[in-house]
Amino acid sequence: MKLNRQHELFRESVRMVLDRECVELVDDWERDGVMPVHQLCKTLAAEGLLGLTMPVEDGGLGLDLGYSYVWAQELGRVPAGAPAMALSVQTDIVAPLLARAGTPEVRRDVLRPAIRGELVAALAATEPAGGSDLGALTTTAVRTERGFTVNGTKAFITNGSVADFAVVLCRTGEAAGIGDLALLVVPTNLAGVRQVRHTGKLGHRSCDHGTLTFTDVEVPAAYLLGEVGEGYELQTRTFTRERCFLAVVALGQAERVLRATVHHARRRRVLGRALTDHQAIGFRLAELDAELDLVRSYAGEAYQLLADGAQCLREASIAKLRATRLLREVADVGLQVRGAAGYLGVDDVERTYRDARAGSFAGGADEALLHLIAGHLTGTEQE
Amino acid sequence: MKLNRQHELFRESVRMVLDRECVELVDDWERDGVMPVHQLCKTLAAEGLLGLTMPVEDGGLGLDLGYSYVWAQELGRVPAGAPAMALSVQTDIVAPLLARAGTPEVRRDVLRPAIRGELVAALAATEPAGGSDLGALTTTAVRTERGFTVNGTKAFITNGSVADFAVVLCRTGEAAGIGDLALLVVPTNLAGVRQVRHTGKLGHRSCDHGTLTFTDVEVPAAYLLGEVGEGYELQTRTFTRERCFLAVVALGQAERVLRATVHHARRRRVLGRALTDHQAIGFRLAELDAELDLVRSYAGEAYQLLADGAQCLREASIAKLRATRLLREVADVGLQVRGAAGYLGVDDVERTYRDARAGSFAGGADEALLHLIAGHLTGTEQE
Amino acid sequence: MKLNRQHELFRESVRMVLDRECVELVDDWERDGVMPVHQLCKTLAAEGLLGLTMPVEDGGLGLDLGYSYVWAQELGRVPAGAPAMALSVQTDIVAPLLARAGTPEVRRDVLRPAIRGELVAALAATEPAGGSDLGALTTTAVRTERGFTVNGTKAFITNGSVADFAVVLCRTGEAAGIGDLALLVVPTNLAGVRQVRHTGKLGHRSCDHGTLTFTDVEVPAAYLLGEVGEGYELQTRTFTRERCFLAVVALGQAERVLRATVHHARRRRVLGRALTDHQAIGFRLAELDAELDLVRSYAGEAYQLLADGAQCLREASIAKLRATRLLREVADVGLQVRGAAGYLGVDDVERTYRDARAGSFAGGADEALLHLIAGHLTGTEQE
Amino acid sequence: MKLNRQHELFRESVRMVLDRECVELVDDWERDGVMPVHQLCKTLAAEGLLGLTMPVEDGGLGLDLGYSYVWAQELGRVPAGAPAMALSVQTDIVAPLLARAGTPEVRRDVLRPAIRGELVAALAATEPAGGSDLGALTTTAVRTERGFTVNGTKAFITNGSVADFAVVLCRTGEAAGIGDLALLVVPTNLAGVRQVRHTGKLGHRSCDHGTLTFTDVEVPAAYLLGEVGEGYELQTRTFTRERCFLAVVALGQAERVLRATVHHARRRRVLGRALTDHQAIGFRLAELDAELDLVRSYAGEAYQLLADGAQCLREASIAKLRATRLLREVADVGLQVRGAAGYLGVDDVERTYRDARAGSFAGGADEALLHLIAGHLTGTEQE
Repeated sequence: MKLNRQHELFRESVRMVLDRECVELVDDWERDGVMPVHQLCKTLAAEGLLGLTMPVEDGGLGLDLGYSYVWAQELGRVPAGAPAMALSVQTDIVAPLLARAGTPEVRRDVLRPAIRGELVAALAATEPAGGSDLGALTTTAVRTERGFTVNGTKAFITNGSVADFAVVLCRTGEAAGIGDLALLVVPTNLAGVRQVRHTGKLGHRSCDHGTLTFTDVEVPAAYLLGEVGEGYELQTRTFTRERCFLAVVALGQAERVLRATVHHARRRRVLGRALTDHQAIGFRLAELDAELDLVRSYAGEAYQLLADGAQCLREASIAKLRATRLLREVADVGLQVRGAAGYLGVDDVERTYRDARAGSFAGGADEALLHLIAGHLTGTEQE
Repeated sequence: MKLNRQHELFRESVRMVLDRECVELVDDWERDGVMPVHQLCKTLAAEGLLGLTMPVEDGGLGLDLGYSYVWAQELGRVPAGAPAMALSVQTDIVAPLLARAGTPEVRRDVLRPAIRGELVAALAATEPAGGSDLGALTTTAVRTERGFTVNGTKAFITNGSVADFAVVLCRTGEAAGIGDLALLVVPTNLAGVRQVRHTGKLGHRSCDHGTLTFTDVEVPAAYLLGEVGEGYELQTRTFTRERCFLAVVALGQAERVLRATVHHARRRRVLGRALTDHQAIGFRLAELDAELDLVRSYAGEAYQLLADGAQCLREASIAKLRATRLLREVADVGLQVRGAAGYLGVDDVERTYRDARAGSFAGGADEALLHLIAGHLTGTEQE
Repeated sequence: MKLNRQHELFRESVRMVLDRECVELVDDWERDGVMPVHQLCKTLAAEGLLGLTMPVEDGGLGLDLGYSYVWAQELGRVPAGAPAMALSVQTDIVAPLLARAGTPEVRRDVLRPAIRGELVAALAATEPAGGSDLGALTTTAVRTERGFTVNGTKAFITNGSVADFAVVLCRTGEAAGIGDLALLVVPTNLAGVRQVRHTGKLGHRSCDHGTLTFTDVEVPAAYLLGEVGEGYELQTRTFTRERCFLAVVALGQAERVLRATVHHARRRRVLGRALTDHQAIGFRLAELDAELDLVRSYAGEAYQLLADGAQCLREASIAKLRATRLLREVADVGLQVRGAAGYLGVDDVERTYRDARAGSFAGGADEALLHLIAGHLTGTEQE
Repeated sequence: MKLNRQHELFRESVRMVLDRECVELVDDWERDGVMPVHQLCKTLAAEGLLGLTMPVEDGGLGLDLGYSYVWAQELGRVPAGAPAMALSVQTDIVAPLLARAGTPEVRRDVLRPAIRGELVAALAATEPAGGSDLGALTTTAVRTERGFTVNGTKAFITNGSVADFAVVLCRTGEAAGIGDLALLVVPTNLAGVRQVRHTGKLGHRSCDHGTLTFTDVEVPAAYLLGEVGEGYELQTRTFTRERCFLAVVALGQAERVLRATVHHARRRRVLGRALTDHQAIGFRLAELDAELDLVRSYAGEAYQLLADGAQCLREASIAKLRATRLLREVADVGLQVRGAAGYLGVDDVERTYRDARAGSFAGGADEALLHLIAGHLTGTEQE
């Protein structure tokens, strides 16, 4: 990713904001299992951070994707995965989708308030049985005179129980296969919407992954994004940016943990030598360092393709697959180097170890990504 | 391990007891982060379970190691690692040590009460900086007229903050190298003993891993196990049985999770087929199943060597290394098969994933085990 | 595998024979790309080695499977894979098949001469397109008045171009699915049989892997093994013993190479220390040593099941999968430890590296074995 | 690596030349175990290919490193590793070294003739005991009145037995540690030079890896490269370019084999489906494809750093480590997909499998590279 001096100045300022608004507070949020998303969005919106790449006419700053890249990197520096997970939905998943395909009503009612930090967003595609399998969706949107009637359940939805509106992927029955998919904006204060919170999660404890149930929810026609039938394509575009973003966040976290681990290993002595001088540790760290270099370089290129408007779902998927896998390994080695102390939570590696596990299914399961990459390679392209 | 009909009858009865006293309750213990170890020991002692292989004259049942093997297997069926961790210290680590090397006073004051479930035991070898490196111990036991004065800190000690007594590995300064190591029984109600509890652990939440601090603690001479200088050898013997035991517990857990995962994968459908019919999943499960078979067979042989009184620290270490590594992999695949639902804690795989991580350092870090195996192989035998 | 003193005495004598008849000569055979199989069989038959477990009435020694186990282990000590590959077909694949299902004519015409070392055997199941996929067989045996007319091509057949007879798996068209498979003994001097030799193989250079073509070959009815329709079951039984045998051979080779590698690594110094003192090497060797221990223990159990007459295709497959994989890794690490010298062929590790590669498809490809293991685990049992 | 239209035009022409002069002939060379290096150099020199990036005043074309990059890529397309190995020494290892540090006599006597294809070059650093350990060198160069007297043995030297001159790394005894290393140009027709050829290698059969023995060889003073004491730095610079070059060659080979393997897997059917539709194969190929993408992107960046004159030994080492490891995996999977047919040499994957094994020690053993990367990471920088 080609960054210029403006991007680097932005990095300094966003780092200061995140240090103050996230890094300082996240330990408490994680302990309590709740992040004040609404308040956080308000604060970050005041700094312009919720609309970096959004159109100026919608209240955004109209900046290039380099700013999104830096924003992702800096979110990766926060010693917990929850803020990046909650905020990425707001800034780099839902907002771009609304900006691309939203009607004037959608822009007025949700996009602009979201950029102002007044509304918290969610993207509701996954269903309880579902995983990454779009073809098996069962949530329906049946066309009525004034819009659509939505019925169904979405699960494992980031911000699900706190979101003020959700973009919901539905089956309309108006065409065969994926051609009948539609994305609808559904305010959660509509009659028939129920939001349930999960507790007892492995990681991302302060971030919500809720269940959304829709029972005969009446959604205005103007809240349809694009056309019926465009749902799959819009969703795919969203995947591309999401995967690029998640890859860069994961790399930021991997770098943070690897550095701290090297620091720790240099000072911990076993059998009379620093752990870094034990070749089994030293080489393991070197392998991770090499992988970090490779994936960072590759993810930068994928982001550049995205910025250039090129098709790059495959590249985004590779970047995401490898970055999240790396983060898992870095956190695992980080724990091993710390030994029992790490297990008992001497620092935040224990948390990263838990958070990192989500990387292999959130935003596209490893298997779904490999399926896509294999499809490109062997000529049977499919999601 | 050769088991006979008596062992299998015992298995049935111990399973019933554990179902009632552990399986039913462990979810609550884990949620609250506290296991009622004293009460649990009382209850299990009433069933004879705390002295299975202990001498009859000390209140044990004098049974062969096949009973310990079955006991370990059944502890592995409990859907949480904490009970096995706390109880193994009591029954298969500390008690055998006391029975082997305890003076009449030690037998009277701690071994017999421990078998009766009146006293909870701990083994305090690891130190804050230490890991598995016995040579770097700093806790001292200085000989006095009436016994020893103990000073130092032990960390990451299972049952550490709740134990009524600890067997403490100390440096006496009476010889060079590992020759000056001594094991002392230290009741925790002696003046100068401080017990601190840890919270916020990755796993084994209901089991205590505390810190023990000794400040000028006066320990009677009769509480020395064996002789000064025998500490290392006694500790090594303890490691052998501990590693065999931990291997069998881990295999029990791995089997439990693998079975549940196969069951789950058979029913979860993606892209129109059961997950087990996705070769990437099916083959992964097959690899785990094969490894389970291999390690179970090998761990059984190691236990048999132990029962036969053969030297088998190397074999015990291999069994422990591979069994705990397997458990980690099974739990990891178990989560992946369940996807987001597993991450959100739909069943106990999320807990096993957290608990299993301890397997790579508790009871001998992977690196320490490989060091030992390499030593045997290349002719530089050392712990 | 339970071995007694007689087995061990046998080991000594077979080792002496193999040292003289194989170990001394195999370098020349490999250089020239030809093993004198007929002469070798004659010599070994004179020592009774070609009929160890065969019925006494057929000229065998009627010994238990422990002798087959020792025979396999000792073949693994030969510093080339070719002799074991050629001889296993003769002694532990084809002969048991003939002894189980051969008519009096088959016993008289091929089994007894094979045991006397007068005829060299081949098993011809695989076809050019085929791999391990029995369902896709195209070689046909059409029933005639006097027997069967065989047409088709078998490829990659051990001893294929030198065998005096082959047991050929054919499709008869007399039933659906695998129910129409039949095994026929086909002397290669019958009209219509063509034998072609391959050169330029990766490994097993002195062992033949030929192509057999059958054009309207008339096979007497008495040369049918069992009944039409029993082909699949007989083949499967054959697989079981073959896989057990190949596993034990591979373990013998792995042990031989690992020992030599440890010896080499102890003496080669880099950066002032022996290679064994470089942890990355020492730990890698320790991992291989542990795996050798595990798989050896497991393969012994599988062999015992075989000896006990139990169904153990799954166990045999696991043993074979893991033993051949281990051999590949041991040879790979062996080369790495020797560096350029190993690559340039300073000793026989270069040869083992090439030979070992066959282990992942000969006698059941890794994927076929995993398919079978997965089938047992997930309830869809199939070959 | 930024390439322009000129580079791509060059690619077309070099591809044509290599097709004619290498691809067409290499099967014969490999079968016979001899490549006509002198003749090949003459032919390629006539096309300007031996001096692409060399100074115009020395007969080179003075082109930028993009041409070297394309040259490496196209060498990777040749279906055998030997030509790239022999030619890389000539064009990208020895020539740049001579151009950087050669005296006028060296330029006149060896560099220019080498560029004209009249002299074949070798770089003689490795010693029989040595591997990648520069500190353990024993070849000596003792200063005399007219130059140096060289004694010692170099082994595993590419082109060693056919080279007309070798650049020899010697210990001068004039300073401590690596400060006394010197590089000397030694024509092999000098008295006291002996060249021995190796046969029976695992791979690179048509390429020579010979032994060079120097007995009281008198080398003129003007044949010293740079100063005594600069040997280490010059060697290190050479390593950087060599590793970048080898990485790109390996990637070319990996791409060639992966493409052919996908093609093959698409057409081979097992259990009724193409191999690419077996997920275990499809996902494995996808992983390799993703890795190819990552390493190619990274190696391009490393080459760019080299072209920009930046220090990049670490990056070159990472690229080389990962590219050669990938090639090994691709060749291994390539064989597995082809099954027995691949093992029997149905196409050139069998050869690549053998050739690829050299990648883990030639040009820096994997362990040496990890040592270097670990040194950078943990602050103990060393070769």
